[in-house]
Amino acid sequence: MQTKLYFDTNHIKKETKDSLFACVQKESESIGYYNLPNQDTSEILAYADGFDENIEHIVVLGIGGSSLGAKAIDEFLKPVKKPKRQLHFFESTDPINIAANLSAIDMDKAHFLIISKSGGTVETISIFKYIFAPRPQSENYTFITDVDSNLDKFAKDLGSKVFYLPENVGGRFSVLSVVGLLPLALAGVDITSLLKGARDVKESFFENGHLHTSLLEKAVFYAKHHTTYNINCLFAYSDTLKYFSEWYVQLWGESLGKKQRHSTFHVGMTPIGLIGPKDQHSFLQLIMEGTRDKSVTFIKIKDFEYEMFIPPITLPHLEALDNVNGVAFHELIDLQCTSVMESLQNKGDIPLDEIVIDQVNEESIGGLMYYYELLTSLVGELIDVNTYDQPGVEEGKIILKKKLTK
Amino acid sequence: MQTKLYFDTNHIKKETKDSLFACVQKESESIGYYNLPNQDTSEILAYADGFDENIEHIVVLGIGGSSLGAKAIDEFLKPVKKPKRQLHFFESTDPINIAANLSAIDMDKAHFLIISKSGGTVETISIFKYIFAPRPQSENYTFITDVDSNLDKFAKDLGSKVFYLPENVGGRFSVLSVVGLLPLALAGVDITSLLKGARDVKESFFENGHLHTSLLEKAVFYAKHHTTYNINCLFAYSDTLKYFSEWYVQLWGESLGKKQRHSTFHVGMTPIGLIGPKDQHSFLQLIMEGTRDKSVTFIKIKDFEYEMFIPPITLPHLEALDNVNGVAFHELIDLQCTSVMESLQNKGDIPLDEIVIDQVNEESIGGLMYYYELLTSLVGELIDVNTYDQPGVEEGKIILKKKLTK
Repeated sequence: MQTKLYFDTNHIKKETKDSLFACVQKESESIGYYNLPNQDTSEILAYADGFDENIEHIVVLGIGGSSLGAKAIDEFLKPVKKPKRQLHFFESTDPINIAANLSAIDMDKAHFLIISKSGGTVETISIFKYIFAPRPQSENYTFITDVDSNLDKFAKDLGSKVFYLPENVGGRFSVLSVVGLLPLALAGVDITSLLKGARDVKESFFENGHLHTSLLEKAVFYAKHHTTYNINCLFAYSDTLKYFSEWYVQLWGESLGKKQRHSTFHVGMTPIGLIGPKDQHSFLQLIMEGTRDKSVTFIKIKDFEYEMFIPPITLPHLEALDNVNGVAFHELIDLQCTSVMESLQNKGDIPLDEIVIDQVNEESIGGLMYYYELLTSLVGELIDVNTYDQPGVEEGKIILKKKLTK
Repeated sequence: MQTKLYFDTNHIKKETKDSLFACVQKESESIGYYNLPNQDTSEILAYADGFDENIEHIVVLGIGGSSLGAKAIDEFLKPVKKPKRQLHFFESTDPINIAANLSAIDMDKAHFLIISKSGGTVETISIFKYIFAPRPQSENYTFITDVDSNLDKFAKDLGSKVFYLPENVGGRFSVLSVVGLLPLALAGVDITSLLKGARDVKESFFENGHLHTSLLEKAVFYAKHHTTYNINCLFAYSDTLKYFSEWYVQLWGESLGKKQRHSTFHVGMTPIGLIGPKDQHSFLQLIMEGTRDKSVTFIKIKDFEYEMFIPPITLPHLEALDNVNGVAFHELIDLQCTSVMESLQNKGDIPLDEIVIDQVNEESIGGLMYYYELLTSLVGELIDVNTYDQPGVEEGKIILKKKLTK
């Protein structure tokens, strides 16, 4: 992974960076996600290795942090690496969506992963009841939950296999835990390489590699200007990163949209996921000419590994487009990204930066996700919020409970 | 369609609304999209009616306004109405995406729609060259473009059928023109009902129906507070509206993200598309506790037409979730939406409103899209921008052209 900041970081003092780094170093002793790249995955690997070869569909019942990460990685890799088993995600109570999802699954060749930290997630348990009632056999299910949660107790009574969430890992930081690793391993994803990618980023940041200064400076810039540039666009030039965007939106929005710890002011940075070149024809106009409240991070893939060329043919009356003749599509998309970046740089008042990942593979996505987790922690520290809770979503749940009890 | 505004509109004077209405009435004489619900569709219907029954795949080569609208409607209806033909959209120069798209199409049963106003769209023509080089037969292609564009001339020389964009209809307002109607008609969508839905909204607004005041007041409120609430979230409680969100993002962002006509200040309202209940577990925290810079519109479906119940079973240790027993999923999702709305209302400083559409059918989506087009025009008028141009995206295209010429 290569990164480049196009905004001015000269004003950032060394002591600011040092003190931020010290905070995060201390935090990493108690917050669980930091250490996930170094975990022991032998239980997961053994389980996937010995898994029933007749199972073709892995159905994840989970929502938010229990599904977005695995889905992002699956959708990223799927177009280039044929999965061993198909992953399905039930993330909605929309009956149309549930029916459509079910119709794509051969139930005799399906296994269900029920993922809920507490076991009290209304969407997950409602759908689970629907699936479970006609097929209550324990071997159809694997559970991922907290030790001693009610779901853990249920699963044990049922006699199904249970995996446990590691301590102090919140849902939106759990992609590199068993929550993401188990479904991905069952789908044939190389989770060892995934963690290797994350570990490389971790080491680069914590052991003074090239990401150390870059991440600290980006975080300080974002935090310093968080009331001016309160919208953070992630412009990824590959369709494979579409669901990564959704993962980013949850991570960034739910972590940083808070009351400040000390002032209790409402703060928050709004994440936007964009895909190029498509969104050049949609959101770009707003970035170029709209209110100056947005920063933009471009993500590029260095090597698409697809040698697909535009045929060198001249179409009568369309000779103006002969300039694409013989160009590879991967060159074209790269030039499109560079051109848009240059056009934004010319404005002079839109903070830009760039992340280049190597390829569409496990290492790249593992590294990219860990990079964003670190960035989120760093910014959260600076804007004085609790990055790891989500108190704002409880009220709606309480109201729903009352309505359901009526 | 039913709508309800939960923010205070008492301060809005009658003369403000009247003068805004007069402006839009005048504008509707020259801007083409207003009259699309009343267009003559006989040519499109006849073409679809006589279309080769062996064709199973309709492949749209188009990007931005040339694809987002038809895709939104197709994805909305697809789960409940099996399409007559499958629609595919090529909207990217990402070689991985192009290869994955192609692998899903039986080329012997495919027909291609090339949609480009000018004929100079680099993405569309590049992919067209790739498709066209090995299969240059005219009968494989239908073109939609401006009269006398270079693409029109090319298509005529080739001997393919050409449809023309109506006058003064920009890409992002073109869904109800031939741009959206032709692919949809070929997929078996009832375009007459689609336009009927739009016409109902048009008449309600222009002929003093229930949407007249509601739309004017919503626009005035949004415009008046556009620097405070500069982020407009659309929270749709059905997965079927996922691509409608993408269409909304282009419409809203590209229309309103501008330099003001008179001040040349940068203004712009940032659109966010959310899907419930999924995004309760993602973006909701940011709305609840983050910066007070967001308005939220909830979209509900009144009648899902899916009688799917949660089985009334008690799961040991999970008795707390017995409150969903026997509840229909459509009731649950409705209660979830209402609960979140109430929790946001309790905050007192987040502007909310609600749109209820009847069913997942053509009339509903036609009406919803026309509603949003009207709202965009109204707000654009008030914040003093040219709603219909997109000058900001040209610079990147010019830079790309230079790079390609090198």
